[in-house]
Amino acid sequence: MNISALLTSAGINTGVCLVLLSLYSILRKQPSNVSVYFGRRLAPVCSRRSDPFCFERFVPSPSWIVKAWETSEEEIYGTGGMDAVVFLRIVVFRIFSIAVIICFFLVLPVNYYGQEMRHKKIPSEPLEVFTIENVKEGSKWLWAHCLALYIITCSACILLYFEYKSITKMRLERITRSPPNPSHFTVLIRAIPRSSQETYSDSVKNFFTKYHSSSYLSHQMVYRCGRVQKLMSDAEKMYMIFKDASFEQNCKPSLMQRGLCGAPTSSFTIISSEMDNVRGKSGFIHMDLAKIEKECAAAFVFFKTRYAATVTAEVLQASNPMLWVTDLAPEPHDVYWSNLCIPYRQLWIRKIGTLMAAIAFVLVFLIPITFVQGLTQLDQLQQTFPFLRGLLKKKYMNQLVTGYLPSVILILALYTVPPIMMLFSAVEGSISRSGRKKSACCKVLYFTIWNVFFVNVFTGSVISQLNVFSSVKDIPAQLAKAVPRQARFFTTYVLTSGWASLSCEVVQVFALFCNLVKRFILRIKDDFSHCPLSFPYHTEVPRLLLFGFLGFTCSILTPLILPFLLIYFALAYLVYKNQILNVYITKYESGGQFWPIAHNTTIFSLVLSQIIALGVFGIKESSVASGFTIPLIICTLLFNEYCRQRFLPTFKNNAAEVLIEMDRKDELCGRMEETYRDLHTVYCQFTATSHELCRCGCLNHRGDVKSIPNWEKLNPGKDRSQLKGSLTIHCNLDIEETSKK
Amino acid sequence: MNISALLTSAGINTGVCLVLLSLYSILRKQPSNVSVYFGRRLAPVCSRRSDPFCFERFVPSPSWIVKAWETSEEEIYGTGGMDAVVFLRIVVFRIFSIAVIICFFLVLPVNYYGQEMRHKKIPSEPLEVFTIENVKEGSKWLWAHCLALYIITCSACILLYFEYKSITKMRLERITRSPPNPSHFTVLIRAIPRSSQETYSDSVKNFFTKYHSSSYLSHQMVYRCGRVQKLMSDAEKMYMIFKDASFEQNCKPSLMQRGLCGAPTSSFTIISSEMDNVRGKSGFIHMDLAKIEKECAAAFVFFKTRYAATVTAEVLQASNPMLWVTDLAPEPHDVYWSNLCIPYRQLWIRKIGTLMAAIAFVLVFLIPITFVQGLTQLDQLQQTFPFLRGLLKKKYMNQLVTGYLPSVILILALYTVPPIMMLFSAVEGSISRSGRKKSACCKVLYFTIWNVFFVNVFTGSVISQLNVFSSVKDIPAQLAKAVPRQARFFTTYVLTSGWASLSCEVVQVFALFCNLVKRFILRIKDDFSHCPLSFPYHTEVPRLLLFGFLGFTCSILTPLILPFLLIYFALAYLVYKNQILNVYITKYESGGQFWPIAHNTTIFSLVLSQIIALGVFGIKESSVASGFTIPLIICTLLFNEYCRQRFLPTFKNNAAEVLIEMDRKDELCGRMEETYRDLHTVYCQFTATSHELCRCGCLNHRGDVKSIPNWEKLNPGKDRSQLKGSLTIHCNLDIEETSKK
Repeated sequence: MNISALLTSAGINTGVCLVLLSLYSILRKQPSNVSVYFGRRLAPVCSRRSDPFCFERFVPSPSWIVKAWETSEEEIYGTGGMDAVVFLRIVVFRIFSIAVIICFFLVLPVNYYGQEMRHKKIPSEPLEVFTIENVKEGSKWLWAHCLALYIITCSACILLYFEYKSITKMRLERITRSPPNPSHFTVLIRAIPRSSQETYSDSVKNFFTKYHSSSYLSHQMVYRCGRVQKLMSDAEKMYMIFKDASFEQNCKPSLMQRGLCGAPTSSFTIISSEMDNVRGKSGFIHMDLAKIEKECAAAFVFFKTRYAATVTAEVLQASNPMLWVTDLAPEPHDVYWSNLCIPYRQLWIRKIGTLMAAIAFVLVFLIPITFVQGLTQLDQLQQTFPFLRGLLKKKYMNQLVTGYLPSVILILALYTVPPIMMLFSAVEGSISRSGRKKSACCKVLYFTIWNVFFVNVFTGSVISQLNVFSSVKDIPAQLAKAVPRQARFFTTYVLTSGWASLSCEVVQVFALFCNLVKRFILRIKDDFSHCPLSFPYHTEVPRLLLFGFLGFTCSILTPLILPFLLIYFALAYLVYKNQILNVYITKYESGGQFWPIAHNTTIFSLVLSQIIALGVFGIKESSVASGFTIPLIICTLLFNEYCRQRFLPTFKNNAAEVLIEMDRKDELCGRMEETYRDLHTVYCQFTATSHELCRCGCLNHRGDVKSIPNWEKLNPGKDRSQLKGSLTIHCNLDIEETSKK
Repeated sequence: MNISALLTSAGINTGVCLVLLSLYSILRKQPSNVSVYFGRRLAPVCSRRSDPFCFERFVPSPSWIVKAWETSEEEIYGTGGMDAVVFLRIVVFRIFSIAVIICFFLVLPVNYYGQEMRHKKIPSEPLEVFTIENVKEGSKWLWAHCLALYIITCSACILLYFEYKSITKMRLERITRSPPNPSHFTVLIRAIPRSSQETYSDSVKNFFTKYHSSSYLSHQMVYRCGRVQKLMSDAEKMYMIFKDASFEQNCKPSLMQRGLCGAPTSSFTIISSEMDNVRGKSGFIHMDLAKIEKECAAAFVFFKTRYAATVTAEVLQASNPMLWVTDLAPEPHDVYWSNLCIPYRQLWIRKIGTLMAAIAFVLVFLIPITFVQGLTQLDQLQQTFPFLRGLLKKKYMNQLVTGYLPSVILILALYTVPPIMMLFSAVEGSISRSGRKKSACCKVLYFTIWNVFFVNVFTGSVISQLNVFSSVKDIPAQLAKAVPRQARFFTTYVLTSGWASLSCEVVQVFALFCNLVKRFILRIKDDFSHCPLSFPYHTEVPRLLLFGFLGFTCSILTPLILPFLLIYFALAYLVYKNQILNVYITKYESGGQFWPIAHNTTIFSLVLSQIIALGVFGIKESSVASGFTIPLIICTLLFNEYCRQRFLPTFKNNAAEVLIEMDRKDELCGRMEETYRDLHTVYCQFTATSHELCRCGCLNHRGDVKSIPNWEKLNPGKDRSQLKGSLTIHCNLDIEETSKK
């Protein structure tokens, strides 16, 4: 592959990008796509329907780019929360601007004039001329690479340090400046010991009144949804759908009203009224269900102060560490209810099991990867499929197959990974949705780096790849040989996976397709049927980090990748800002928990790039450069350890100092009573059930709050009317999230 | 080496053991050796001097064995504390009795009749006939080995589980049943932030009255010993020695009176009286020193309840995790004062530094090991040193050199290891002596297992050994080939290092030698000059675990090692019990912290033995046996993970439940006030300084408590006379311990 082939590939991608972005700027103006491109804005307010049909709607315009560019970090914080800000910090991470300058003015000339040869015209130069492979063995110019490595590492570490510091500060401010957060007063307790004399609820009450009487406020059990209940609630749901359909004749459609089919029918009216009678007798079907519900060995315990809750969460409660296990509760919308009922003693084995399953999945995934690698070696392909020979002889086709196709196949295969990893993380037993997403993010990250980088670098069958890794000592040299050779694959990967995926992200191909199907085939005209998704951090963070990883490892070896990366990051900044502002809603927050992952990955990338450089300097017989690289590795690792000591603990626990100050301030303001009042409401498991109801439209027709089971038992002395408000607010938020890709 | 050579070696060792043990039974009856063999009993009481010179003193007798055998676990707990009990549990660990039975009745016959061959008479059979090497490839009898492996693993896991459970219970009882322990009420705080307006002491007071006012009692700063102070205290010590010498004329020698030379002289009287005048003017030299002392950024903070102290220790205090770092305080005698002044931000780098240094030390240590290995290959030795050829031709000499000498050299070299590892652990910055010992124990353990097992198995130069480990995949097969080949080395190692070291331990060679030198060359007649040591867990625990490790890894491969091991463990049980009862004193306790180390090492041994078995079954082409071994490895690892979840947390933190119960009980009894009163006294840093004084005899001459600096400041409103008692009691305990070997 030479420069012109690379430029062909870049050209194709730029074209695709431009077309898609123009398409987006047109599509977003169509009123029918409002739900696809402005899901976020639709969530709270009703949209303007029936815009006038004008010409302007069909002209591409860059207004969204301008708007995304102009949005400040405060606005992003306001709309997308802290996670969005952290995500954009990962995007902006300025190191690659420095790397581009250093590598273009220092490393690239050294590579280009590395050997005494007659240079062709630049467009027809092979790519290898620009890589470190072109430098002579024993060349004295390798100090330039070593210096570049030093500059990149040092500036990366300095930037990482200040980012970590500012994100830690932001996290602290998020805690102190926010209004009283119910999760700070709540502890999730699991593994409540079984007792024959008393119920779980009594056990919890006795335990906490005995040992934490001064700070214990109340508690709320988590209930198991039995099989019978599931069947009955399914039946009820079906009934509601029928009911809903028959209702449409009488009342005008509300915001929340939903049904399986759009057109109202009247054939179920009789059944409906029969069911109405049944409901009249039993009050509501849910009232029966309440008896079937079973308590789990888990509960939310509410405390009077934040400090007391944190203390209870962090201190070992019982002399048997497998009983009375405490954790700080996730935020109310963040609770992953179905995992709370998993017996605690299963968790460790579930974790090990999912880890094993994930490793097995990675190994199985080698099959498509090796196929992709086959494509880059055209000769092999032509031998396997002789009928392709004629086709592949065309120059343009050849460039397409070697430069473009492998990446496309890889990307398509990679789209199956996040949902599977999300499933693994759910099975693992996370108590919060954000925790599940974070865990999935790590899994996808390991998967991506392994499968995109290592497996591509060590081409060949599964066995030969594992062989490479069984010989630890040779890895630097192996990497040093293999990475520059794969430069063109990585470069095209940035072009295809990077640029194209951003365009696809902005156009929201899948959602658009669903919208079209619904609108023109199923003929549903309701804008609100598309429920907005939360930001898919578990796919986007690993993607960004992968490109960062490729950037670091390739920077001094094949600097030509850097400008493409820089364009990718610039585009990503605009696209993701736009998406955060318009498309995704913030259902729950992890509070910047993605930053430590990004930090560690960057350090790993740096160290790996240094190890590869060490291997290269070894091959090129430059003992001075090798000698200088080793202290750099040690210093990078020490820097990482320092950051771990200095910043990481604040991402795990809240400081007593801060919590006590907040408690005092609230007590002075007299805000505590108000907070206590809300605690039960927000951690009510059956707001989830009531969402199901609200999805079915029943709550909005009748405002029936009596249907919430156990209300009397769980909230003694509280007015039912309080609940209704909170139900409506949370209605949109707690709908079971489906992973986007 | 054949069976008769092995028996020769066993004979030599048995002889040596018997001689040493008889010698011990005689030596211990000599009044002059009381300080060597009854150090523990001397510590509290005065010995009976001048026994009558009788014949009985020179007859060996087994009375000590009987006494050691009869001592119950409760008595051991009473004299040696929980650590001693845990140590003996490691010794008794019953698995090897099971292993011997299984291996002798199942594995050994299979090995012996493994190949169709004519057997010689058993004494002249080579050792290899009894190892797994003798089994034919593809033999169907390998299921016997697999079954033996299963039985050993299962019984080991069951025993480990019940031991862990009972030790956890013992640990819990130790906490609940003991009288109020000051360390439970105390938190060590480090990294107090520097402030220009206030002293560290004021900072601590302000911080804790601000955030923990309800439970904060008082605090006590840790002081730095400056260089000037060190010089002055050295000068003072010298003065005291001279003073002491001149004093002997006037008053009769007391228990604590010590000097450099035993004979009283009168030549220093003038200087002494001059110094007396000086002391009259300045009150006491220490009074000046008090002004020079500087506060460290560390303090002991006392709380009103155990629960409050635990909470403060476990919860993150400040939003900067490198400030206000809290840990539960060690027990008063366990505090390692000189490490408390190390700035907290240095600690992480110290830990990394010592880790690197320890690794470097291990690599340097390969030199004597390779020399030892050279000895087992006699041909090489004869080539290198031709003059030895004549000597080595004698059969007896040959057996001695190959079977006995390598182990002796190895043992001598190994004696240098514990002091160096202890030094590393001190530099690392442990806050407690027991923590330092535990850390040294781990280092010595890794060192021993690496150097005795792995390096001996993979004989050859440093480079070739590292080469073996760079190829991960081949390790099982490599081990499977190498371990049976080294069987004779390991067997003789058990004989020499095991049996002989036990005899040396009981005779206390080094202490005896010192005692003789002192008594007959320096002519000091004072029994009390020998200060009793605490039990050297950091050398003995790794040794025991190493033999356990050898036992597991060799059990099914070369079962002949097992009877020797069994004898070793039986002897060890008696010897260590005797030593705990008579020789060592318990200065401080870790509360069973050595058990998790023992547990993990045993699991590691089991897994390694399974991996080796896997390799062997692979070489012998028994796919069934290999197939059955893999689930065993997985189950063992899962079992370990379960134990880690179930028991380990209680070894790290105390449960809130337990602490709160204890607090309540004490409050009901009204014992709290008493405990509060003692807290300051026991954590006074200058009891250490006063020990120096008491060593010099000054305190006992005058009972001068005024000399303790800062007493007024640190203990407002307390009577000085309270201190004196505690000083005398702790006098013997806090003397800087020197590692025994």
